[in-house]
Amino acid sequence: PGGKKYLNCVRNGQNTANRLPPESKAADFVEGNRVNIRGFLSKRRVQNAELVFANILVTNGPNIQVTSASSQSYSQALRSIRLHSPVAVTGTITRLDKEDFKAAKPDSPLSRFPSNVVNVELDLVTIKPLNVFPKDIILSRDVEFPASSRHLQIRFSNPLRSRLAARARIGLELRNSLDKVGFTEVETPILFKSTPEGAREFIVPTRSRNLAYALPQSPQQYKQILMSAGIRGYYQFARCFRDEDLRADRQPEFTQLDLEMSFATGQDVMDAVESLVTELPASLNAEFRLVESRGEIHPLPLRNSGNSQERRDAQSGLAWPSFAAPFPRLTYQEVMTRFGIDKPDLRIPFEIRRVDQILPAEFVSMITNLKDQPIVEAFRFRPETRNGNAVESSTTFVKKLINNLPLGIRCHNVPTPIVFNTSKPMCGLSSLGFEGFEALQSCAPGLEDFQDLENGDIIFFLARENKPFQGGSTALGMIRTAVYREAVSMGLLPRNLDFKFLWVVDFPMFMPNNDEDPGQGGSAGFSATHHPFTAPLTDKDVELLTTDPLKARGDHYDLVVNGVELGGGSRRIHLAVLQEYVMRDILRMTDTGVEQFSHLLEALRVGCPPHAGFALGFDRLVAVLTHTESVRDVIAFPKSMKGKDLMVNSPGEITEEQMRTYFPGWRPPTSS
Amino acid sequence: PGGKKYLNCVRNGQNTANRLPPESKAADFVEGNRVNIRGFLSKRRVQNAELVFANILVTNGPNIQVTSASSQSYSQALRSIRLHSPVAVTGTITRLDKEDFKAAKPDSPLSRFPSNVVNVELDLVTIKPLNVFPKDIILSRDVEFPASSRHLQIRFSNPLRSRLAARARIGLELRNSLDKVGFTEVETPILFKSTPEGAREFIVPTRSRNLAYALPQSPQQYKQILMSAGIRGYYQFARCFRDEDLRADRQPEFTQLDLEMSFATGQDVMDAVESLVTELPASLNAEFRLVESRGEIHPLPLRNSGNSQERRDAQSGLAWPSFAAPFPRLTYQEVMTRFGIDKPDLRIPFEIRRVDQILPAEFVSMITNLKDQPIVEAFRFRPETRNGNAVESSTTFVKKLINNLPLGIRCHNVPTPIVFNTSKPMCGLSSLGFEGFEALQSCAPGLEDFQDLENGDIIFFLARENKPFQGGSTALGMIRTAVYREAVSMGLLPRNLDFKFLWVVDFPMFMPNNDEDPGQGGSAGFSATHHPFTAPLTDKDVELLTTDPLKARGDHYDLVVNGVELGGGSRRIHLAVLQEYVMRDILRMTDTGVEQFSHLLEALRVGCPPHAGFALGFDRLVAVLTHTESVRDVIAFPKSMKGKDLMVNSPGEITEEQMRTYFPGWRPPTSS
Repeated sequence: PGGKKYLNCVRNGQNTANRLPPESKAADFVEGNRVNIRGFLSKRRVQNAELVFANILVTNGPNIQVTSASSQSYSQALRSIRLHSPVAVTGTITRLDKEDFKAAKPDSPLSRFPSNVVNVELDLVTIKPLNVFPKDIILSRDVEFPASSRHLQIRFSNPLRSRLAARARIGLELRNSLDKVGFTEVETPILFKSTPEGAREFIVPTRSRNLAYALPQSPQQYKQILMSAGIRGYYQFARCFRDEDLRADRQPEFTQLDLEMSFATGQDVMDAVESLVTELPASLNAEFRLVESRGEIHPLPLRNSGNSQERRDAQSGLAWPSFAAPFPRLTYQEVMTRFGIDKPDLRIPFEIRRVDQILPAEFVSMITNLKDQPIVEAFRFRPETRNGNAVESSTTFVKKLINNLPLGIRCHNVPTPIVFNTSKPMCGLSSLGFEGFEALQSCAPGLEDFQDLENGDIIFFLARENKPFQGGSTALGMIRTAVYREAVSMGLLPRNLDFKFLWVVDFPMFMPNNDEDPGQGGSAGFSATHHPFTAPLTDKDVELLTTDPLKARGDHYDLVVNGVELGGGSRRIHLAVLQEYVMRDILRMTDTGVEQFSHLLEALRVGCPPHAGFALGFDRLVAVLTHTESVRDVIAFPKSMKGKDLMVNSPGEITEEQMRTYFPGWRPPTSS
Repeated sequence: PGGKKYLNCVRNGQNTANRLPPESKAADFVEGNRVNIRGFLSKRRVQNAELVFANILVTNGPNIQVTSASSQSYSQALRSIRLHSPVAVTGTITRLDKEDFKAAKPDSPLSRFPSNVVNVELDLVTIKPLNVFPKDIILSRDVEFPASSRHLQIRFSNPLRSRLAARARIGLELRNSLDKVGFTEVETPILFKSTPEGAREFIVPTRSRNLAYALPQSPQQYKQILMSAGIRGYYQFARCFRDEDLRADRQPEFTQLDLEMSFATGQDVMDAVESLVTELPASLNAEFRLVESRGEIHPLPLRNSGNSQERRDAQSGLAWPSFAAPFPRLTYQEVMTRFGIDKPDLRIPFEIRRVDQILPAEFVSMITNLKDQPIVEAFRFRPETRNGNAVESSTTFVKKLINNLPLGIRCHNVPTPIVFNTSKPMCGLSSLGFEGFEALQSCAPGLEDFQDLENGDIIFFLARENKPFQGGSTALGMIRTAVYREAVSMGLLPRNLDFKFLWVVDFPMFMPNNDEDPGQGGSAGFSATHHPFTAPLTDKDVELLTTDPLKARGDHYDLVVNGVELGGGSRRIHLAVLQEYVMRDILRMTDTGVEQFSHLLEALRVGCPPHAGFALGFDRLVAVLTHTESVRDVIAFPKSMKGKDLMVNSPGEITEEQMRTYFPGWRPPTSS
């Protein structure tokens, strides 16, 4: 039956791909010429029995309309083909609309369309279906297909298709920028080996008994070897792999723009990355605009979208704003103090202040069970736009917020919000006592935010243990972010499409072990904050290694924009003795553990120059620049939270044959 | 002791990477200015106690010389640092030599050196070692390091370093060319799943019981899905993986420039690839020249090599010749007939001719044991340059050749060479008999090569079974290649640095199963020659599928240059019914086998347009263009024939913990 079916297809002319007339080239597009075009039959309007209009969708080309005007039989042909099917069309050009784009590139001999043509009208001569779009797929505006139909989502979703196009553009621009300033792309192996760098790696068994490759969590070790090899500036768009329990918006494989510079300081690397990133808005603006549809902001190509409505939408869209440079550089201590998070969103117009010095003990004991002089912090949120009664509106806001607090905050860390309300005693702040109320508004250093309070202003209070900052955020830091997002979504603060970049620097070198990250497996009770190759920041931090390593700061820097960590880097330890000392004496790794890094130690030993580098999360960069919160929206075939690619149904079942190949001692389990 | 050692380093100033003065930028390079430079101390000449000259090697920069002229203490400083150590230098510029390059790019604010400066002379002010090059590494001209010291090989080998630089250049040029003609880069997953596409895949176990990813042998299936998704031109520099027993010059992971075009024919794809490839010589010539050292031809950068001798060598080197286009297109039948190989080297000035029609049966039975009218083929080799006695020289050549025949030829397929020698009866050809001798020189059609034989000409005869061509080469084809290589290496033929490209087309769709390739696991007794997605060439080949599938030709094309297959591609089957028919009814794959391709069948089913593509072996392309026979010479960290990366010592031992993580039912083997 398969045979018959397929022979029918051949007879219906759908296997004619080997007999297609040569497609026309840019130079053929002259009014009156007959041209051959291939594309999808994308729209059809039946005027009457004789006259049918149809659009042929060609990617990277103009809007193309064919009419059946020259013969009635053509109208029948146009109507007989199912919409969205691929077709080969021959027609006579009756009209060509051109538009001059500044950035229009000269047409190459291979270009199918002149780059300045935006509309083509054709009188149909022949049309031939090349395959059939099936009946069972229902299309509607903004249809969402299940993940198993990713191909249909890419084909029919403008946001997704445009984001993938923007991704390609950003990637190529970054490469050319890097090339311009002397970086060389070097590819490093994906079949690497297991080392205790910090994350759990996927293993790849080999047919050599008990030997396995591991997929790299990053090209870190290879790129450091390249520095020892005398490469001055290395870069690579590297695929990286981590076998982690997937948290929101992580993928088991991801792409990073990985770079490293020998003879460089962290400062040099930050300068280089900043110069790269700040070139991006101009590149994007040359080809795309940002448009909004159904509340979602996404890019659209300015020309050659194959659809005139989209082209008009794009032309009236927004350009990317330029990025203010140099990016501010704030220390870990400072961002934790001011924002309660190590990846602050600088668009948020309010900061955290420490207030326990002015609060009555009674208030403190009311808002927390913590003993031993807890630290109390607060921030003031002032709605910028208010409808109706400010106090009422803020009270509603507070209720909604508390009900939707970020996960992991609910129990111990619920903040105490107080709405400023002049119609209440002490404007609603009576729980602070008179002295607290006065002090808060005293304009004392650090308390300026609490001056001039207005009706509807909300102050959020939260206590925390009195100890140094650790990890990525405090509870109040997360609440501050949640307040901002909720306020924007409720229209209490204006949406801000700016990109506020900053560097966060001077992280602690080590952090106490936790259950999530395997770390380096040493017995010190702590692990490297980022990886064990980060250099101590100053000579003082070198000394701290021997006395109080948890206080030592590393020369590490994170690039953050709008609350998203885009990437991180560091100056590396370039002296073999120091590297071995950190691994063996500070982290207390086993001999076997240290031995797994012997290639790196050897590379440092042979006079390796100082070096520093960076890894930019490319998926995340593209997501941020194209205004989506999920990297899945910028990856053609993303994996689900369970690590599955639902389009191809991977991973698949391991077969007995594979088990016998890679684990010769293995026997299939006997059924019990 | 580690701690002490490292504190000594710090005290010796080697951990000063955090206190380096900012490096000077291009704009600072003015005579009389004081500049800060970082690089390797690469050469030293001690004139006398007071005067020492030294070179600072900076990658991507000019030749830099410092002198101790301004103070005697500086000469001590210069002499105290071990050669090849990384240093930070401050000095006063006493001389700047400039050279104007046509292609010199404008300096960016991050450029460390003006691009037109080729020599800088400095009076030393300070020099500080940043690490120490160890005593135990012995350097000599053209030193070869073991694979475990790949970092030193990259650092000290000009050919390797330049080839890696050329690789980066070629890659970026290809990307920009593809972008120019409307291709979009799309990244596809590396964590894929196992499918019977043709090669054995590496598997990547997951923590979900019995589920594994597989590493892709190519992005073939994903890129076809992208065609169904409406992407018009896709490309990707894709890492591909095959768990094969490594033959010479194969790597378990390799890079291919993968591309696919929807609505395209094979012709369209060949045109696109040809236009890409022919742009490469100009790009290479803008930055490199080919030089020869110790018999090896390799690229050197024209400028910014950091070494004036290298710069001069490059400037007197050879440019890449342009590639004659359009590339000839020859069918599989034709190349097998004329060259006995499906990847012919068109530089070889002699071809294979069928001669059994003129040979006496006696001669045939003398040179072969084959019965049933074997086919006898021959070619004439004429040395172009001869020293002394031509006959003697050719006789020596023949002996050497027969002793060094390519592997796998020795037994049944030793050719019969006859040296033309006018001093012998019938010029040495008496075994052909008089009629054979006359006929050979008769100038009959197809025998023109054997006219005007001269002393020292050699005719190689070899018989083969009388059946259609199969596989990649005949024995005589391999011998012909061996004769050419040996003749060039012995100086009997001139070395030819041209690049002779061609397309080989019209391959058989299927070939009988063999032991090496797993194929598709169907029960038909044959497998797809390339992969099961290749479309039949013409309607006639479609019909042959049902009647005599082994005779059906596929619309497949290989790109070949100088005897090297650079890549292959095909028009794909774009109709789900035809694809399923080929899998199920022609290859006779099991239901389970076909099921593994259900994502592809589904993608074809939804009106997928016709499409065709190509995969260019990028490692091999770079190897050929940079005149090396081994892809290991163009890969920073290649793997050995046993799949080991000897630099990092991968693969590594699987730990019990890893086994328990990925195979929870597994128990460590009890020692017996």
